[in-house]
Order: sequence, then C-alpha cells, then structure tokens
Amino acid sequence: MKTDIEISQSTKLEKINLIAKKLGLSEKDIEKYGDYKAKINLPINKQKDGKLILVTSINPTAAGEGKTTLTIGLGDAFNQINKNCAIALREPSLGPVMGIKGGATGGGYAQVAPMEDINLFFTGDFPAITEAHDTLSALIDNHIHHGNQLNIDPRQVEWKRVVDINDRELRHTIVGLGGRTSGVPREDGFDITVASEIMAVLCLSNDLKDLKNKLGKILIAYTYDKEPITVNDLGVTGALALLLKDAIKPNLVQTLEHTPAFIHGGPFANIAHGCNSILATKAAINSADYAITEAGFGADLGGEKFLDITAPKIGKNPDAIVIVATIRALKLNGGVNKNDLDNENVEALLNGADNLGRHIKNMKQYGKPVVVAINKFTSDTINEMKALDQYINNQGVKAINTDVWAKGGKGAIDLANELVEACDEQHNFKPLYNKNDDILTKINKVVKNIYGGSNVELSSKAQSQLKTIKKRGWDEMPVCIAKTQYSFTDSAKLLGAPENFTIHVRELQPRLGAGFIVALTGKVLTMPGLPTHPAALDMDIDNDGKIKGLF
Amino acid sequence: MKTDIEISQSTKLEKINLIAKKLGLSEKDIEKYGDYKAKINLPINKQKDGKLILVTSINPTAAGEGKTTLTIGLGDAFNQINKNCAIALREPSLGPVMGIKGGATGGGYAQVAPMEDINLFFTGDFPAITEAHDTLSALIDNHIHHGNQLNIDPRQVEWKRVVDINDRELRHTIVGLGGRTSGVPREDGFDITVASEIMAVLCLSNDLKDLKNKLGKILIAYTYDKEPITVNDLGVTGALALLLKDAIKPNLVQTLEHTPAFIHGGPFANIAHGCNSILATKAAINSADYAITEAGFGADLGGEKFLDITAPKIGKNPDAIVIVATIRALKLNGGVNKNDLDNENVEALLNGADNLGRHIKNMKQYGKPVVVAINKFTSDTINEMKALDQYINNQGVKAINTDVWAKGGKGAIDLANELVEACDEQHNFKPLYNKNDDILTKINKVVKNIYGGSNVELSSKAQSQLKTIKKRGWDEMPVCIAKTQYSFTDSAKLLGAPENFTIHVRELQPRLGAGFIVALTGKVLTMPGLPTHPAALDMDIDNDGKIKGLF
Repeated sequence: MKTDIEISQSTKLEKINLIAKKLGLSEKDIEKYGDYKAKINLPINKQKDGKLILVTSINPTAAGEGKTTLTIGLGDAFNQINKNCAIALREPSLGPVMGIKGGATGGGYAQVAPMEDINLFFTGDFPAITEAHDTLSALIDNHIHHGNQLNIDPRQVEWKRVVDINDRELRHTIVGLGGRTSGVPREDGFDITVASEIMAVLCLSNDLKDLKNKLGKILIAYTYDKEPITVNDLGVTGALALLLKDAIKPNLVQTLEHTPAFIHGGPFANIAHGCNSILATKAAINSADYAITEAGFGADLGGEKFLDITAPKIGKNPDAIVIVATIRALKLNGGVNKNDLDNENVEALLNGADNLGRHIKNMKQYGKPVVVAINKFTSDTINEMKALDQYINNQGVKAINTDVWAKGGKGAIDLANELVEACDEQHNFKPLYNKNDDILTKINKVVKNIYGGSNVELSSKAQSQLKTIKKRGWDEMPVCIAKTQYSFTDSAKLLGAPENFTIHVRELQPRLGAGFIVALTGKVLTMPGLPTHPAALDMDIDNDGKIKGLF
Repeated sequence: MKTDIEISQSTKLEKINLIAKKLGLSEKDIEKYGDYKAKINLPINKQKDGKLILVTSINPTAAGEGKTTLTIGLGDAFNQINKNCAIALREPSLGPVMGIKGGATGGGYAQVAPMEDINLFFTGDFPAITEAHDTLSALIDNHIHHGNQLNIDPRQVEWKRVVDINDRELRHTIVGLGGRTSGVPREDGFDITVASEIMAVLCLSNDLKDLKNKLGKILIAYTYDKEPITVNDLGVTGALALLLKDAIKPNLVQTLEHTPAFIHGGPFANIAHGCNSILATKAAINSADYAITEAGFGADLGGEKFLDITAPKIGKNPDAIVIVATIRALKLNGGVNKNDLDNENVEALLNGADNLGRHIKNMKQYGKPVVVAINKFTSDTINEMKALDQYINNQGVKAINTDVWAKGGKGAIDLANELVEACDEQHNFKPLYNKNDDILTKINKVVKNIYGGSNVELSSKAQSQLKTIKKRGWDEMPVCIAKTQYSFTDSAKLLGAPENFTIHVRELQPRLGAGFIVALTGKVLTMPGLPTHPAALDMDIDNDGKIKGLF
C-alpha cells in the first residue's frame, strides 16, 4: 500500500495559475510561490456568493476521525458531480508535526499538495506571525528597560512569547537576568504560535486596515496603576502590520484531484478559535458556488467557535453543517480499548454514539441543516454500520457513508449530493448567545447548551479578571473557551456524553485585538510538549532531497 | 531627494527568469518566489570558473562605510564595462532591521531589489534556521525530561536557543520552571539567529549531504561524565536537515541595474564567520566571469574570516581584494566628533587613515592584489581627497574614487577596470596560519598579524575549555574570533590603529558542525538589544500596502 507522501508525489499537479483560473482569478490576482503555491492579492473580488458548508466532527480520539481528509474528499466530490467548489483549511503547525501528529494535509487519495511544503514552512505565514509576536515582546521589554515612560508594571505584562515548537521547557521561565544591561528580571512564559493573539487577529481580519485596527487594540500589559496598555500605546502597530504584510494574504493550493484549496491561518480549536482565516473562507465563498470550510477539533470547540465567533465576522452563516464520525472513534467513546477496535462491538458503538448524538443536537440548535458523514474504516462491520445508521436517523438527521481515503472524491458523491439539496433549503440561523449577554452568561450558555455541563466555577484569579472585564466594558465580546478537545468536560479522560459536570475556568484573558475573551478551563495547556518518541526521530531527507517520515 | 525605497520602487525590475538567463540558468534551474525572487536548485552546474573579488572595509563607524552599497555598485560597474558579473551578499537579519540599522540592501542607485522583501522574510531562510535551531533545543530538553537516556547534564547543555530579534531580555533566562510536568529547571539563554551554529553550518555546506554531515557533528551538551553529545547522538539530524531543505538553496535577485545577485545566509562577522553562503559565492563563480563577494564588518573580522575559514571551503581564494573606506569614517577614527564631520580636517583624516593602513597591510600579507575604494560623500573636500590618495599610494596600493550611491554602476567604472587588471595578475595566496597550528597559536597569529595586538589572555573558563579542545583533538579547526567590529582591539571605544594591547578571550566554544572554534573576546554580545528609539517605532504600512520607515 502506498503511503500518503508516495500517493502525493506520484500525482501530477496542475500549475497554480490553472487552479486560480477555475476560480476566475487571473495571473495578476495571484503571486506565485513556485509552480504549485500562490498567495491571493487583496482585495479579493466578489464574483460569487457561494453556499457555505461547515465541516466539524465528534470529539477527536486517538483512533482518528479524518475530518481534514473528509473535507478535502468532499471538495473533490463536488467536482465529481460538476459543481464548482473551493475548500478552506487551516495551515499545519510545525510543533505538532515534529511531535506526534505528522502532517495535516489529509490522507490517502484525499490530500492537498504539495504536502511536504504545506507541512513545513509553506509560504512563511507562521514564521511571520511568530516574528511579529516576539518582536512585540522585545519592544515591550525594551520600553521597560529604557525608562518605562508608560509606567508598565513588569509583574503585569500580559503578553507572553511564542515559538512554533512543542517546547514544554519554555512554559514557565524567568527572563531579564544577567544584570543591569540585560533587561528587567520578571516571570514570563512561551505559548505555541497557534495560541498567539496575532494568529487570531490575522485570521479574523478582512484587510490591512482591519488588521492594523485589531493589532493596535491588543492588550499587552497593565501599568502600576492597573491601567491597560495596548500596542497602540507602545506605538508599534505599523511595524507589526509591516511584518504581516504577506502573511495576511490567503494561500491557494490544490487537492490531488485539482480542486482549489485556500489554506490560511492555523489557530488550534482547543486553545484558540480554531478556524481558518475569514479571508480564506471568504475567498472560497466569493469565487466558487460551494465553499467548504473546516473548523478544528470537535463541534464543541471549532464548530461552536466558527458559529459564534467567526461566522459573524464573515457576515455569513453556514448553509449546512457536516459532522464527521467514525465507528472506531465512537467505539472508543463507548469504552472499547484502543487495541480492541478491530472487533465488532455494536453495544459499545451505541454507547459511544451518545457523543455524536450530543454534537448533532448541538449543531441542530443553530437552525441549519445537519448531515453526519461516516468516514469508513476497513474494520467497520455491516452490523455496526446498520446500528449507527439507525441511531443517527433517530436523531432526525441523515447518515451518509463516505470513503474518500481510498477513493478520493468518488468516495463522497452521496454526501455532496445530499449537501447540494440541504443548501437549497431555507432556514434561519439561531445564535447561541446574544452580544449583550455578559461574559459569564455567554460561558454558561456554551457550557450548558453545547458541552452539556451543569455548572461553571471560576478560580479566584478568573473572578478578579471578570471584575476588570466588567469594569472596562469588555463584556460585549464573544467568549473563546480553551478546553481539552477529547471530552465535553474539561477533563480529557471523560469520553462519551457525560452529564452533571462542572467546567472550571482558571483564567479569563481579554484578547482585545482578536475581539474575544479567552476562558482557560481545566488543565488545558497553551504550550504542548513532545512525546517520548517524537516524530522528528523518524524524519529524514536523503542526499537527493527525498523525504521520509513526514506523514 | 528620493529615499532608497522610493528609488527602488520607481525602478522597473526584470523578471527573475531573465536575470537567471544572464547566468546561463534555465527555468528548470530555478524555483520562482513571485516574479522577482528565485531559489537556485542544487546542484549548481559549473559553467564557468569566474574571477573572485572580495569586498571588505575599514572598521565600521557610526559614519557609515557603505560596503554593501559599494559591492552592489561595483557589480553594476562590471556590467557597464560589458563584463559578465554576479554579486554574492548576505541576507539581512530582522533583529537589527527593527532596531537601528534599517535594511541591508544598499542605498541610492546601488541597491538590490525587491528591498522590502529582502529586508523582511525574503524566501524564509532565517525562519527555517531559527525553527531548526529551536526544534533542536526542544528535542534536547525533551530527551532530558523523558528519562535522559544519554545521561545529559542539564548544567552542561551547550546549545542555547535563538530568535531573529534584538531581545536583550532573553540573554540570560531560567527555563523548565512550573513543576514536574514542565521540564527540568536549568539556566539557558537566547542568541540572535545569525549567531546560530546552524546558520554557520548552512553557510559552509556544499550540498544536502554535506549539510547533514555537519549538522550531525554539532556539539549540544556534555554528559555527567563530561563526554560530548552531538546531534547524531540525539538522532535528529534528518529532521533538522528536512527543516532546512529549501533554506540551503541560494536565492537570486537583481540590482536596480539588473545585475544578478545571489543573497544567501547572514552570519554577523562580529559574532560569527560573517560571510554569505559558500553556495552563493560558488554560484556566482560558476556562472559569471567575475564574482564579487562581500564579507561582513571590517577586514579584521569578515575579511580575515573569509580568507581563513570560508575560502578554503570554497576551494578558491580571491583574485583581488577591495577595501572600502570613507573620508568621514577615517576622520572619526582620527578623533573628530561625529557632529563635526562636515568640516575639512586633513590632520584628523591622516591620523585616522592609520586604521585603513593597517587593514591594507593585513590584506596584502595574504599575497593577493589589494585596491582601496573611497566611497564618496558630498562633504569630502579636494584637500582631504588628495591627502588620502597620497597616504594610500604610500602603502603601495591604489586608491580609486567611487560614487555608486548617486550614480549606480557608472560611479565605479574606474574601480571595475582596475580590478579587471588586478585579477589577471598571478599571485600565490599565503595563508595566515596552518591547519596544524594549535588553537592558541591560531588566535595569536590573528591577534598579532591582523589586529596588531601584543598579547592574548584567556579567562579561567576559556583555559578549561582549551584543555577539552586539546584533549578531544579539536585543535585542527580554524578559529572564529567574536570581537567588537568598531576597533582592532576588544574594546569598542579604541579607534584608529592602537598598539600594544591585549585581547581577552572569555570563552572558547567548539562548533564541531561548522568546523571552527569560536573565541568570544571582550564584552562582545551574541544577543544585541534595541535602542531607546527602535526603528520599529517609525515603520508603517498603509491600507494599500505602501511601506514607510524601512530604509
């Protein structure tokens, strides 16, 4: 059997100007990065007002749901049925690529390409975001070092540093040691780049003007008098925007079946808002009849955040929502051991299906059509497939079997046809919460109506931050909850569909640039670590440039 | 008067494939990054064996020597006299761009373009080097965290982290705080990316195979038993090479007069070996009749390192050496206050000319023809010009006036003609030291025969490191002295041509991958800081993408 990279490298790609042409984009609308990658020049002309399809999933498990693979294959399926379509995805983060995850460009015959570039530095967006973030850090500390005219309290610098690496060693640090000429000693820490507010700002900006406006508002510190200090106060908004001048432009590549794919921005849905850039999704909507956008992790995280944070900024709600599930992952949710997943177990499947059931209920409450895509694995049995189909039908939605990993677009033709119909229906969008709800109300609505929890508990730090948020009038912003992706609860081990649990909010971080309040729950980390045997150990490139170990 | 960026943006560039064609490179030899930048695919065919001209300078001062500008204008001058020519330069580092330096792409009518790209992320080489460096850091700490099978002593991790930012706050840090799950607490620090050994390795590698060989040898730590641990021991050579797969390819751009320019690698000459990549210089030699390569800072740093470290790895010594000087900078060296430089002062000029005189003597001892290029400023007077011309002639070399800032290539035609003649002469190269000299002997030869010092003093730390170097047989490598660029001594304030001074070596760092021993002298810092008013404060990009403040 061919590996992903072998399949990718044996496929002849079309030149990127031909891919752009399918979307009505000419040579002057794009800047080519080699023959198969391009950036889209801004502003993007609104040639179409395509239907928008959101792809989300059950809670991810170690068994794999293949949400990105399904999204790519679905785009190809639209092309198979002669519907003009574009995909919008996030860019992979290098940290997890080097750690445990391998690439994030789909799999089998449903991949975006060139995968070895997309999985590494691509067109340089993440390095630019990292550089802008850490340049801001240096400028803050430099200001404090050179007289501190803004009266910044070094104990209240809210702006941590970032690297695009899983580096647990940098979570908690002391910086500024070494004496008078080497800065002011203080506590600091590093997040992974995908958690950077600059990543969120970039992903939520419509153009350079909007980007600058958002960058300027970023809260970086408080003074000794507890007054907030922003990037505008420091006077470096222009420099940060300059560093992001190319990164803000969406990237265009193709699937192995030559469907156009916009890949841009990469916030993680567990610690950030988890959606590709609004410019990527808008580019797809504005240039294709069907735009398929993927949100990160489960529907409780990326899905909810797309609907409550991102869609309002795009100015368009999805016309249909796809929830991806696999029989294996649901069996895991139903208590089956990872090593026993190959054995038929209908009872455990139906137990675990409650996880899917809650996601269906959750997505349905937004008022738009919901379809479940069962991503096929060879171990799935007829009995399991029948039982799951019935379970899903009982929830009042359709289940469609797909097999894009083995068949590419041909493996999702039924799903594409179903979605064409669903997108033609008229439904009103019902938001989960109102802008005017205060932050605690918003958190409660997400916890009760999405997670299925009964209670929200704030740490004393979060309570104090809540006071500041109310006092400063920052209540109007949506909430971006950082939570483990593995469970509806804030504890990674509680699978399925737990009830009567409390969500513990340990911090409320005002992200005034991105325009939301981050609620850190449970033990969720904004800087992952590497495993005992990181993927890096198995990577190689031979003397002729042939790559190994980049999945 | 137009600013540099205005001149650059008002020039119509040629498409990069046309520039490549001038060098006999076809479309399949290059990978285009937009219309005006390209990477050169490896291996580079040896079509020619061009003459090599090294451009170096007097000790830099705040008055500016314009060495990069001169190098670019000289390349254009060769084209003006119908000689086929290519330039090799280093890539700018973003840290200083944001700090005090502005861009590093020449000035006036002698610039490489597109300057706004070259000065920011260009083709992503520096981000790739930074990511590879810090991924290695994370992998080291991860190894220690997960059982430490290699028995690495956390107090003897020699591999610091890097960012491409002037961030003094990160010079001395403590990392790994936060308890058992967040790594092992230890002292650490950050250098600027240009000081990274991976930068040096990349710049000194001939191809992927060579790169992997060098990466694998990098010394990262010692065990509790004081045994050295390398990247090969950690097993991540392949992963690092993979991250550098594109960064190793030289970049091609053009001057405003459409002379081909290879810009690749960017080690600083004060803290590293200071030369563009050997692949960049070799690309120029192999594809043009005249290759002009620039070394960083003064001839005591970049010049010496090119001749003693880089040239042997290229396998070719320069056919001629140009030393760039300005009357203003020599007056500063002669004691004139920075604010009085506009006033004629022949006496001070002749005092300061001793700085130039020592550089002439130094470069002449390598046996190759030396020419001095006087880079014209409007404040230069006839009397000063005459006096300096005479001084230089008394040293047995020619002085040529140039004015490339105002006139482009036309401003250096005399210099180009002189160099064509010089390159035709036959001279044997005389190396400064022998491979078999031990490290202390090599340092002494540089200090006495280049700096003009009388003595070398080792700190107790350096003495202990010297013992390890001898014991391990690392003596065979050349020495790369890290020293202030402003003075022949290790004290930035001592201008001119001081005598009878001691060079203080505080550390001897074995760079087994790069293949040299770094000798840190005086107070030289491997992580600069930002000034009170960093350049970032004056940078901006308007809503249409027009850039301000990037010089």
